[in-house]
Amino acid sequence: MEEQPIGILDSGVGGLTVVKEIFRQLPKEKVIYFGDTARCPYGPRPAEEVKEFTLEIVNFLVKQKVKMIVIACNTATAAALDTVKEKVNIPVVGVIGPGSLAAIKHTKTGKIGVIGTEGTIFSGAYEQTLKKINPKLSIVSQACPSLVPLVESGIQEKEEIKKIVNEALKPIAKKEIDSLILGCTHYPILSEYIQEVVGSHVKLLSSAEETAREVSTILHYQNIAAHHLNSSAHRFYTTGDPIHFKQIAEQWLGQKIEVESVNL
Amino acid sequence: MEEQPIGILDSGVGGLTVVKEIFRQLPKEKVIYFGDTARCPYGPRPAEEVKEFTLEIVNFLVKQKVKMIVIACNTATAAALDTVKEKVNIPVVGVIGPGSLAAIKHTKTGKIGVIGTEGTIFSGAYEQTLKKINPKLSIVSQACPSLVPLVESGIQEKEEIKKIVNEALKPIAKKEIDSLILGCTHYPILSEYIQEVVGSHVKLLSSAEETAREVSTILHYQNIAAHHLNSSAHRFYTTGDPIHFKQIAEQWLGQKIEVESVNL
Repeated sequence: MEEQPIGILDSGVGGLTVVKEIFRQLPKEKVIYFGDTARCPYGPRPAEEVKEFTLEIVNFLVKQKVKMIVIACNTATAAALDTVKEKVNIPVVGVIGPGSLAAIKHTKTGKIGVIGTEGTIFSGAYEQTLKKINPKLSIVSQACPSLVPLVESGIQEKEEIKKIVNEALKPIAKKEIDSLILGCTHYPILSEYIQEVVGSHVKLLSSAEETAREVSTILHYQNIAAHHLNSSAHRFYTTGDPIHFKQIAEQWLGQKIEVESVNL
Repeated sequence: MEEQPIGILDSGVGGLTVVKEIFRQLPKEKVIYFGDTARCPYGPRPAEEVKEFTLEIVNFLVKQKVKMIVIACNTATAAALDTVKEKVNIPVVGVIGPGSLAAIKHTKTGKIGVIGTEGTIFSGAYEQTLKKINPKLSIVSQACPSLVPLVESGIQEKEEIKKIVNEALKPIAKKEIDSLILGCTHYPILSEYIQEVVGSHVKLLSSAEETAREVSTILHYQNIAAHHLNSSAHRFYTTGDPIHFKQIAEQWLGQKIEVESVNL
């Protein structure tokens, strides 16, 4: 069990920010990554459809004998985490819990901001998770539908990125918050731009970094963390164009990878 | 199950830093705290004896129908965590894992410092936990036997505290580290003094703050977090002088509490 890979899924390339953090925080672990690029973005889709897509990918990963499922996509976590937990008998970790707990740990004022896709924000999942733990928290949420397409496009020109991020964050930048949850795994890629818009007094909580931390907690709690530096390669699957995926993934991860195209 | 209290134990008052963080991060939870003040400090005692004491307290807490055990003492975690996990059928959380995972998340240079009691440092528990996860980390450890007695004494004079902390931390302050694990639940009380000695470029990781975060992760993962703001009071037990305990505890927690004296 311990030496089996961790299965990580996302609507596209965003979940690679979680993979990068798992590589950093848990260097002995092997991962199988599934990016559903052909059907990305999940953000604007109905929750039922996102749930269906997520379960398809979970089935694929379970067949690859993964020891844990990480839903490295906020939209899919909001729509499908509870259902996935019921269906499989291995640990399942989503990205909404870890970001929420980190914000609760960090906030001094109790005023927390959340940005995400339309699917994530309109589901109210962060607000519910946070308020369930502490009803006195004050939450400001904002959907930023332009940011996932920005990241997936691979645009490199700084001025263009800056302009789009500025526009997307304008409303929440005026709110009084001391912590901002980057409630989409694509957003850590844009964190320097986001930090500039909201100001340095606001702590950005990356669901990528925090999810890797939670994966580590659960692996150790369940006693299924890898003991050995496994020499087999990580595996990456995409439903979209493997060349485009490989390009973006290698740039983010800073290492060469093999990508396989797959149809569900 | 959800509305049952969390059982928290320590050799004395140090574990109250964990309680304070649980109150802050998990305001719906009720706690039963056990401070073994009569036998404090655990730091210089043989591991076998610490294990025996810890099991006695765990038995006491299990009889109070707690839903989780938190060993809020690094020395007891190092000596007894694995044994306690085997003996009880409720979740058990120690303080060494959370501090270690936080340091791994935070470090950029891979150079991590750990300070703790003699028992904790000589057990090698932090070094083992950290290296097991990432063998490339470089760890510098140092026992600070004078700090627990300092905190338990309740000394308030700043110059006197400063002098003792300076003396205790001298060797590790010269090392090149970017993260320092406060590997004793007493130490967060001294964090401003510790920060001054090691410099502002070193991130202090409080096992109290990180353990409360991990308690939250496990409660939610196991689906046993409290749903309701429970109106019954928290309970505090000490094997030592309840008046002295109450004095220190109320000062730290910033609220009135009832303390009961108990013999094991």
